[in-house]
Amino acid sequence: MYFWVVKETKLISSAQNPLIKKVVLLKEKSRERRKTGLFIVEGKREIELVEKGEYIIETIFFCPEILIDFSKNSISENPNIQFIQLAKSVYEKIAYRETTEGILAIVKSKDHSLQKIQFKNQNPLILVAEAPEKPGNIGALLRTADAAAVDAVLIANPKSDIYNPNIIRSSVGCVFTNQIGIGTTEEIIQFLKTEGINIYCAALTASKNYVDCNFGEATAIVVGTEATGLTQTWLQNANQNVIIPMQGEIDSMNVSVSAAILIFEAKRQRGF
Amino acid sequence: MYFWVVKETKLISSAQNPLIKKVVLLKEKSRERRKTGLFIVEGKREIELVEKGEYIIETIFFCPEILIDFSKNSISENPNIQFIQLAKSVYEKIAYRETTEGILAIVKSKDHSLQKIQFKNQNPLILVAEAPEKPGNIGALLRTADAAAVDAVLIANPKSDIYNPNIIRSSVGCVFTNQIGIGTTEEIIQFLKTEGINIYCAALTASKNYVDCNFGEATAIVVGTEATGLTQTWLQNANQNVIIPMQGEIDSMNVSVSAAILIFEAKRQRGF
Repeated sequence: MYFWVVKETKLISSAQNPLIKKVVLLKEKSRERRKTGLFIVEGKREIELVEKGEYIIETIFFCPEILIDFSKNSISENPNIQFIQLAKSVYEKIAYRETTEGILAIVKSKDHSLQKIQFKNQNPLILVAEAPEKPGNIGALLRTADAAAVDAVLIANPKSDIYNPNIIRSSVGCVFTNQIGIGTTEEIIQFLKTEGINIYCAALTASKNYVDCNFGEATAIVVGTEATGLTQTWLQNANQNVIIPMQGEIDSMNVSVSAAILIFEAKRQRGF
Repeated sequence: MYFWVVKETKLISSAQNPLIKKVVLLKEKSRERRKTGLFIVEGKREIELVEKGEYIIETIFFCPEILIDFSKNSISENPNIQFIQLAKSVYEKIAYRETTEGILAIVKSKDHSLQKIQFKNQNPLILVAEAPEKPGNIGALLRTADAAAVDAVLIANPKSDIYNPNIIRSSVGCVFTNQIGIGTTEEIIQFLKTEGINIYCAALTASKNYVDCNFGEATAIVVGTEATGLTQTWLQNANQNVIIPMQGEIDSMNVSVSAAILIFEAKRQRGF
């Protein structure tokens, strides 16, 4: 706690402060995030991952009465970050977590256009999700992608912006650790074809068992929504449509579960 | 809709009716479910799965103004089920779903003690979850278990009863399609050892890669909570502790995702 005290920081003690109102807008409105190119992140671990992901942090709000154990580090020492101290009543206005940690940042969005995607590997492994809906599912997909250290996560026709606080929270910060590209289905298919990446689409109608595929070359694993699966555009442009054989009463799995089974089969074949 | 109309059914038009109050209690209170040995299920598909799972349905409430496309079937013709028609305002009091389907049942709980578990296979594949917490995770585990047609799902030291409406909902009815056993960690370990089933515990501290294990014999795959993993009791009683290698920034995956990766590796080895 020491450094927070000695640092000369502005103090905001009214929830009517314009900056606080701005934070609330960024928290609640996707349109505000798009318009300003900013978003908010709450929590120590998440803010550390933001920095690790080479995002630019503009402002950090902290509440000395709540924040514990955030000692001197590259964030606290960064001269480009504005630090603002908040009264507890004000901090509670902007916090979105139940068990808050007393620290929240305003961060600059990244450019997620496909042209920015870079591969370190000759044979990248990519996860593509078309129109994923529930923040919890998107978060779980990003956690799996992080664990598997895939080369990129591409989101086709997104239903919400990835800086939605519920996505950030359910991804436990993996929004920031993955290389994420966003585009339309058509743009992403074009991108994958140009890059020479094989497209494997998960489909209940496919006949090829996923374990019989060779995921050793440049591979994109593509999953759709739980309700309707992938669009015809994806299925028709796949190098191979694949099925995870299911033998129960219900012909569906959670989308993040299906993606993980396919991604980790690719990892197994590649020897991790 | 035809049969609902011709059938002579009682009509309840007041939310103050004692039976309606009982349904609300069963929906909200785990204690009430335990005390009465009853629980409620909402939705056509879920009620069909209840019947498929050989549960005893006591009462079906339906709202003719909402229910569509539930034609004559083995449920509607079952003479042991009491059918009760509800006014829309009353039905809305007991519905827990956002997009309700106008049908809800009171069902008898099953006995989930370990002695009831029966195996059809010589080499059963079992999923064990210790102290799973979030209804959404339990639901996803049960969906995966259904898809893989595992021989049983055993829940050690449960935090909530499995007939919690949120578990039923997130499992999309897979609570009813799986053979479920419940007991303490000690009881389940004893059970597995007596049955000669190999215990594989998922642990971040393990050194053996899961893909290097032979899951072809009688196998129990055991997962703990996301926050703290498995207890020492499990880790010490395992035939083998196994790790899913993770190469990202975050050393954790969703518990249902980890379970699915392990279960489907076993399925792959067994040739589905």
